[in-house]
Order: sequence, then structure tokens, then C-alpha cells
Amino acid sequence: MTRISRFAFSADELSIVWEDSSESRLQAIWLRDHCRMPSSRNPDNGQRLLNITDIPANIEIADVTLRDDLLQVEFSPGGHLSEFDPEWLYRNCYDRNAPHDDRSETGKFLWHGLSFAQGVPRCAHETCANEAQARLAALRAVRDYGFVVIDDVPRESGRLLDVIALFGYVRETNYGRFFDVRTQVDPNNLAYTNLGLGCHFDNPYRDPVPGLQLLHCLESSTEGGESILQDGFLAAKRLRDENPEHFALLSRHWINFRFSDADADLRARAPLIEVNDRDEVIKLRFNNRSIDTILLPPELIESYYPAYRHLAEILERDELQIVFRLQPGQLILFDNTRVLHARKAYSAAGTRHLQGAYSDLDGLYSSLRKLEGAAA
Amino acid sequence: MTRISRFAFSADELSIVWEDSSESRLQAIWLRDHCRMPSSRNPDNGQRLLNITDIPANIEIADVTLRDDLLQVEFSPGGHLSEFDPEWLYRNCYDRNAPHDDRSETGKFLWHGLSFAQGVPRCAHETCANEAQARLAALRAVRDYGFVVIDDVPRESGRLLDVIALFGYVRETNYGRFFDVRTQVDPNNLAYTNLGLGCHFDNPYRDPVPGLQLLHCLESSTEGGESILQDGFLAAKRLRDENPEHFALLSRHWINFRFSDADADLRARAPLIEVNDRDEVIKLRFNNRSIDTILLPPELIESYYPAYRHLAEILERDELQIVFRLQPGQLILFDNTRVLHARKAYSAAGTRHLQGAYSDLDGLYSSLRKLEGAAA
Repeated sequence: MTRISRFAFSADELSIVWEDSSESRLQAIWLRDHCRMPSSRNPDNGQRLLNITDIPANIEIADVTLRDDLLQVEFSPGGHLSEFDPEWLYRNCYDRNAPHDDRSETGKFLWHGLSFAQGVPRCAHETCANEAQARLAALRAVRDYGFVVIDDVPRESGRLLDVIALFGYVRETNYGRFFDVRTQVDPNNLAYTNLGLGCHFDNPYRDPVPGLQLLHCLESSTEGGESILQDGFLAAKRLRDENPEHFALLSRHWINFRFSDADADLRARAPLIEVNDRDEVIKLRFNNRSIDTILLPPELIESYYPAYRHLAEILERDELQIVFRLQPGQLILFDNTRVLHARKAYSAAGTRHLQGAYSDLDGLYSSLRKLEGAAA
Repeated sequence: MTRISRFAFSADELSIVWEDSSESRLQAIWLRDHCRMPSSRNPDNGQRLLNITDIPANIEIADVTLRDDLLQVEFSPGGHLSEFDPEWLYRNCYDRNAPHDDRSETGKFLWHGLSFAQGVPRCAHETCANEAQARLAALRAVRDYGFVVIDDVPRESGRLLDVIALFGYVRETNYGRFFDVRTQVDPNNLAYTNLGLGCHFDNPYRDPVPGLQLLHCLESSTEGGESILQDGFLAAKRLRDENPEHFALLSRHWINFRFSDADADLRARAPLIEVNDRDEVIKLRFNNRSIDTILLPPELIESYYPAYRHLAEILERDELQIVFRLQPGQLILFDNTRVLHARKAYSAAGTRHLQGAYSDLDGLYSSLRKLEGAAA
């Protein structure tokens, strides 16, 4: 509990000296807009009950009193009275709290090929389904590392959807609620051949892109076909460290992506590296197969291609990749905005059969926060 | 068919003079990367079969020949030979073709309260389901105006999902595959009261936000409860026209959104106005109820609030809104990244029962392009 040592106010601003000697200066409009009283906020779901236009543009602080450990602020015109818990103000005021972006690189554990010498994050399906603590650990792995391996998912068609039901919802697409990844006759996608696939994200041609992907191994008796994962956030960091101008080119200039077959014509325009307003990486798209005609201004083509090649080269560095053989019954759940996946080519003899599905990150993060709240 | 009048080349660049006297200058790396030969591109789905790193960094043009109306380009090192259809080059080369962003404001019909004096875009459900031309017109209305009214959707629970099946897929969320909008006891959301709701987008606290929303009227016998729609792209344009600095503040600085109840804790960080790399508006978020604590740097608070208030004021202008009473059996399908919705308060007497559902824009745009291709 952080107490207020002293405070002062003018019409425009409230100044607080906290007991740790730090200071806050909070503007009248922000204070009124963040009133926690039941007339301003629904106490059950936090929904704000007033519009910004309900607050007079010339709002001022008329009086401030500290009473029973609550800071009472009276506003003018209108005479609205707000009571603030000092602890809430300390933890939420804009001059001492930076905004958090759960999806950004900040706070994540960035990893490379040697990071998981003690083993990758994993959990047995049954445990994950029945024990909240295990489920919390699995979801935290997706948040922090971008992936988790789930063992012993029953080797039956469609059972990967049971895993999605543990935290969120299926993102159905033109590929179905789930889809089979195996060698097909007349494949509509290179994924359905036995060719190797370089590190890529799925569906960059979709907006919104599916934030989560699952791959569930049903059969694996071919030579080859190993799975590869790579941390795109580390790759982006390497690019920025090695050449900030390359990073800036790929994050500032957008390109078009496209996939077109008999049933679908999907197009999106987006950057290869997406950053937020604080230049933190929040999302990558990379898939050489799906980049549509690159239409940048002529003066940019000469500088964009070396930047694009540089990122592609980083994504081919063995030292950044983990390689493993997905065993029948194993499933990988990964963040399709951060973790790239690839597979090695495999033999025509034997069978390699995976099932894939998509989901969204919002449901996973919501479940994670509720589990954390329950565990706290 | 556009022919080539003459051409010249250096190691770095191919220069073309088209028969309309315009000129193109195309770099060697771009030409090689956009090779259309079956060894470089899958002819069925357009997927690129090579990585950028498969192309030598020192790629040069070794020779160019025009033969049988095809431009043959030989590259070095490696000796790869590409044949380009001049028509394809003319329509796709970067120095004469600007990239298109289907989702951006560019090319849309921006509307206000008097734009639909001849009636809003609408279609009967049965016609839309059975006739490709009618379905195409309905999907074009969503693309161009951001919404369409579908008449005579059977007044049965869940039938709004039939409408989604005409073009795409349901986005299931913590609210279900669809949800009921009517007065509830102990509502977890203000939507489930009889209070009026100002113009807003749904679920700004979700990432990805659902790109499409449907509202299907099952019963409507209350006083009040009229529906309101507003074009957010026009509102953003007004903001930019009236005060470019306000527009820049809202598009450059991101804020946090949140919704939290017993089952979910959804959070997102995003700008109120999202623009692409060419500063075209592509997506809005606005919902006073769901804006979380605003944590901008102190020096920005003073300038951000007037910009936020300005946008809110524009969104309250009656002249920009269309007001209508959704009749039982009617459904509105609208772009939740562009078109805001609102409702007037309604009486406790009588019943107002809507069902809502979400979908994504990618499926709708894909279906639209396939229908356009079939109609062409």
C-alpha cells in the first residue's frame, strides 16, 4: 500500500508526493475520465459509463481532500465528486506507469537453437486438460516462448480441436475447421507435397492472420520430415542489431500477400515486421511462397531487396532453429505471429500425416489471465 | 494488349518504352524475383517456388530478347531464363502500378446521413442465397459502403449463421457462435440493458478484432430502440480535414482497451485510427466503454485528449448518422472496422430481441473476388 505524503492542486493539475518521495502530476481531464465511482464505471466489468463528450471541455479541479485514506476530487463545472484509492492512482497514473503490450517482444523470452538443452516446454494432454496449474504453465509457455508441445493427444482425426477447447476457439477458414497435411495428388498448396518447406508463417495473405496454429502428428513413418521452429522475434532483433536501417525498411513499408486457388482468393497488405507505436515488434509475416507482386516506389526497390534478403538469411541460420521429430500423438501449439515453422523434405515411402488448425491469440491470453487471477 | 516499342538493358536494369510512349525501368533483382516460369511459380496458385536467398545477391541481366511477343530475359550468374508476357509486365511493374489495399478508405464510397435518400443497400435473404449476382451485389455493398441490410431472414434462433455461410466463417468468441442482445437481469455488458448506446465498434479489446458483425432482429415491440449506423471512414476524413494534427495524434499513439467479466479478460493495444504505410485509413476502434487506463507519456496527455474529444464529437453529429428501425426478420451485416453502430434507449414495455454474431473480412473479400471473377 503506497500512501500519499502530501498533495497540492491547481485548476489544471493535481500534484502528489508519494511516501517513496516520487512525484506525480495528473491533469484534470485524465482524472475525471478515470473516475472509479459507480456512476462513471461499472464496478463489475470496468466498462466506462460516460463519453468523453459528457465531460466539459473546460473541466477543472475545484477541490481536493484526503479523507479516510481516499483522495476526494471535486470537479468544476458540474460539481462531480470522485474518490480515488491512492493505491489505484499509484499503479495506474500515466506518469509512472508505462503501457504494457502483451503481444510485443518486450518481456518475452527470446530463444535460439541451443536455448532448450534441458528440453522444450511440454505438457501431457490429459494433465493439461485436468489440472489448472499445468494448463497455466502451457499457456505461459506460448506467451513467453511462443510455443508448447502437447504430448499424448489421442491419434484420432479432429482431436486437435480438443486442445483448442482448453483455452479458446477454432478459427475456421477455407481450409476447414481443421485440415490434413500430407502428400496429395494435385495439391492446391505446396504444403501438401513431400517437399521441404523453409521457415515461414502460415496465411500471411489473410487479414486477420490466425494468431495460433496447431499441428498434430497422426502418423510419421517416412525418412525425413523433421519439424523446425524458429523465434521470429529473435530474428527481428538480430536484424535490428545488425542493420537498423534494414529493420526500419521492413517495418515501415508494406507489401502485398496473396493466395489464390479454385475456391479462394485471399489478399492482404502488411509489413514483414509489424511494430507498435513504441517500435516494439508485435507481429511478423514471412512466407516467400505468398508474397504477391512487390509494388514499392522505384526509389525504394534498391534498398528494400537487401533488407528483405537480410531477414531471409537470418531465418535460414541453423543456429537459430530447433529441429525435432514430431512423434505420433504429439502436437505443437505455436504463436503464428512470432514462431516460424518449417519441415524437411521426406521420402515417398512411408506415411507422414499431420492435422492442422488455427485459433486466435485473444482467447488464449484471456484464459491465461483468468488462470493467473485464480492462482494469485 | 500493350506492346513494347523498344527496350534496352544494362546489367542492373531493363528499360522499356511502351507503345503508349511511357517508360519503365525495372531492376534485375525484381525481374528475377517475379519470374513467371513454372520453375519459379506454381501456375495453379501463384505460389513462389524459390526463396529470395536462392537468387544470387549479385544477380545481373545478361541478355534480353523479344521473341514471339515474349520478352526473354537471361540472368547471370546461373543462366536462368525468364519469359515475360509484356502485358503482365505492363500491369504489374512497380514503376507504373500503385499497390492496392482493399481494406483502405481509398476507393470506398464514404457516406453520411443523407447519402441513402434512395434507400440503403439491401437484398432479400432468399435471393442472396440463390442468385450469384445478388450475392455479389450484397458483398460489394459491404466492401463499398461497409454494410448491407438483408431482409426476410427467418425469425428463428441461430439463423443469422446461415447468412455467414453465404460468404465466410463464424468467428466464435467467449460470447458464443452467436449471442442474444436483449435486456438481461445482472447483465455482464451494457449492451444487455435497455440503455441507449452511443456509436461504437464492437470488441476493440480483442486482437484480432472481428472484422464483420451481424445483428438479426427477432422481435421489436418496444418504444425506441432504433438502430443507428455511421461511416467511421468519413468521420476520420472529417477529423483529418478539420485538424490534421488531431488525426496524426490518434493514428500515431496507441492506447489500451479492456473487457473483463467473470469468464474473460480481454486486452488489446491499438490506435483509435489505424493507417497503412501510405497514411490511408484502414481500421478504426472506438468504444468509450472499453478504453482502459490511458497511459500516454505526460507530455502527450494535454494534446491527445482534445484530439480524442474531437473524434468523439464528430461521431455524435446527427448529420453523419442514418437512423432506422430494424424490423423483425431484418439483419444488418456490417464492417466492424469501418461502420459504427448505436441504438436508442427503449422502453421496459414490449420486447426487443436481436441476435448478433461475428465473422472475418478475409472470407467475405475472398468470396467477393471469386464471384467477380466468375461474373467477368
